[in-house]
Amino acid sequence: MDRLLLLHGRIATMRGGRYGLIEDGAIFAEGGRIRWMGPTGSTALPEVAAGERIDAKGALVTPLLVDCHTHLVYAGNRAREYEMRLEGSTYQQISKAGGGIASTMRATRAASDEALSAQTAKRLDALVAEGVGVVEIKSGYGLDVENELRCLRVARGLQDGRPVRIRTTLLGAHALPPEFKGRADEYVDLVCEQMIPQAAMAGLADAVDAFCEGIGFTPGQVRRVFEAARAHGLPVKLHADQLSDLAGAALAAEYGALSADHLEYTGEAGIEAMAKAGTVAVMLPGAFHFLRETRLPPVELLRKRGVPMAIATDSNPGTSPTTSLTLMIHLACSLFGMTPEEALAGATCHGAAALGLDDCGVLGVGKRADFAIWDAEEPAELAYGIGPKRPTLVRHAAQ
Amino acid sequence: MDRLLLLHGRIATMRGGRYGLIEDGAIFAEGGRIRWMGPTGSTALPEVAAGERIDAKGALVTPLLVDCHTHLVYAGNRAREYEMRLEGSTYQQISKAGGGIASTMRATRAASDEALSAQTAKRLDALVAEGVGVVEIKSGYGLDVENELRCLRVARGLQDGRPVRIRTTLLGAHALPPEFKGRADEYVDLVCEQMIPQAAMAGLADAVDAFCEGIGFTPGQVRRVFEAARAHGLPVKLHADQLSDLAGAALAAEYGALSADHLEYTGEAGIEAMAKAGTVAVMLPGAFHFLRETRLPPVELLRKRGVPMAIATDSNPGTSPTTSLTLMIHLACSLFGMTPEEALAGATCHGAAALGLDDCGVLGVGKRADFAIWDAEEPAELAYGIGPKRPTLVRHAAQ
Ligand SMILES: [Zn+2]
Ligand SMILES: [Zn+2]
Repeated sequence: MDRLLLLHGRIATMRGGRYGLIEDGAIFAEGGRIRWMGPTGSTALPEVAAGERIDAKGALVTPLLVDCHTHLVYAGNRAREYEMRLEGSTYQQISKAGGGIASTMRATRAASDEALSAQTAKRLDALVAEGVGVVEIKSGYGLDVENELRCLRVARGLQDGRPVRIRTTLLGAHALPPEFKGRADEYVDLVCEQMIPQAAMAGLADAVDAFCEGIGFTPGQVRRVFEAARAHGLPVKLHADQLSDLAGAALAAEYGALSADHLEYTGEAGIEAMAKAGTVAVMLPGAFHFLRETRLPPVELLRKRGVPMAIATDSNPGTSPTTSLTLMIHLACSLFGMTPEEALAGATCHGAAALGLDDCGVLGVGKRADFAIWDAEEPAELAYGIGPKRPTLVRHAAQ
Repeated sequence: MDRLLLLHGRIATMRGGRYGLIEDGAIFAEGGRIRWMGPTGSTALPEVAAGERIDAKGALVTPLLVDCHTHLVYAGNRAREYEMRLEGSTYQQISKAGGGIASTMRATRAASDEALSAQTAKRLDALVAEGVGVVEIKSGYGLDVENELRCLRVARGLQDGRPVRIRTTLLGAHALPPEFKGRADEYVDLVCEQMIPQAAMAGLADAVDAFCEGIGFTPGQVRRVFEAARAHGLPVKLHADQLSDLAGAALAAEYGALSADHLEYTGEAGIEAMAKAGTVAVMLPGAFHFLRETRLPPVELLRKRGVPMAIATDSNPGTSPTTSLTLMIHLACSLFGMTPEEALAGATCHGAAALGLDDCGVLGVGKRADFAIWDAEEPAELAYGIGPKRPTLVRHAAQ
């Protein structure tokens, strides 16, 4: 796919987070990059061989989507736990029956590399089939040095042969493994002194994340994790203010985090700090829906302060069992009141920004020639339906 | 597919609305009907040729799903209307810009048979790909004699060559077409004196439905529609008590309706009447979600009174733009608190009952040999994920 000329597309460039529609547009790409864009009728339209031409026939063209927050690597599922809850079981009863995050940790540790890879691949392929071209994958169900690194390695390995770029994030500070019960600080030592250095040394992580919450890690512990990440040259992200306001967003901003994610309880000061630091707000409507939350993230305030809002699946077995980013675009609109334009920007250009990437998520000269054609005319059609959408054609530039 | 032997399935028979699991089960079918069921290890296992065997390898097997309430035949979409609403437009502004149900009516009337059929087929095929084997399709966007009948004809025509059974419902009393503004009773005359008789004569409708609501038709008008249906030997269904309590459920029950649908505002008396009449309650979580409703249907009361609860997509462009019945199973659990077992029963056996069918929706001797194999072990996996599920294999008996 060296040279390529797309014709007659209704192109949503997504530059600056806006649709930026080009009517009857054309894209010329060479060497995996966009070299020219403009109206199909332009006299400057490059000439290519017949076999290098794609006719979009008036259909909507967008950048490939970016899923900037997933926990894709794990084994097992928690369907029975979901069922028990609906049948009236309490959290204690579920926990006694072996449920909760510890059950996913046990299944993940017990799974062979092959099994873990095969189960993760199914979820990844579902995303790819929806036109997702970049997927962030966090560790966080290994919760010991060996298994956290193994999860990152499995995630990296899945890129081979797939039309998708994978970015990995070390989330050792996701939950306290049972063997460290009552010794959270010692577990944070392990994260800081072994997991982060080893992941950095092996080049297995593109970023470091933590879960800052009453049921997760304290701001003080997160600070130690961030210091270790900084010492090893890794950018940070944070699960912040999802269930309570621990000033996680401000903490993330203080460390120049790529993103602060969830943010249901983030107040004005946190948003102000994010705006100043250029930290992206990642909205995760899947978890909001699955947990039956009622406290909405501060979309209006983020909008007012100009904090870019990304959207992601948060794909994980406990709080967001989904592999549909297009469904999350819909939920971001219907549940959070984002506009379809904001939501699509969230799953393209702002998603890319949340990963520190500037070569994708928009269509423009010099950017990667990654795009999807949809059976749609209006960009809003990607947000409107309750359910996933699949593109009719996907082009993903070589790595 | 005359003879068929399925082996090693984890079979959810769904008899009586329960999973009724057969572990390591087998199904023998001949002539499109199930002739024998039991454990794969049974000495009574029928013998067949190698090519007639299907090995489910321990995977979950269910009846094909039944979507008992859709408005699948229409042209156009209302994505821009959804977008305008999220961008802050009022209903008046949207209506002025040509939105609302009238816009779908205009697009439907203007579409050629071929265009209408092609657009409907896309939605139908999405359902079929999810393992739906029976789809009810209502008219209701034609709103004149010619176009209501045309919509039913288009719906019927889609069965050809597809592994799906289609049941059609005349919903002439869906909304008042603009040309009858202020003359609702005259429009009801048209429904009763022309649409119903002509649809019945042409054999185009399996049932008659109406929208009983402040913004729809009054109980008195619905009663006239039901009388006309009865006079022409057609069973009835009703959009009842969705936005207010007009005692629609009781009215439906009085006419021995196959189902009363929505029911958010139905009280005890209505439920009692449904229980006595054997009327199925059809739960429509897609519309509940899309309209951001807060009043939940009376699931607990329906459960207590033993009223069977079906689940359907309500697929329509204005209030439930979805073609995923498996996603509705999830929403019925997460939004309405139904159990995964109830939800699956709702999309199989109780869905069949809502259409007056007793040969499908369960797996048992004498029933149609319609089943799906899923990449799952636990039936709850069909309810748990936020997003659609697709079966790995579908068998649909000949018509
Ligand atoms: Zn997360
Ligand atoms: Zn309906």
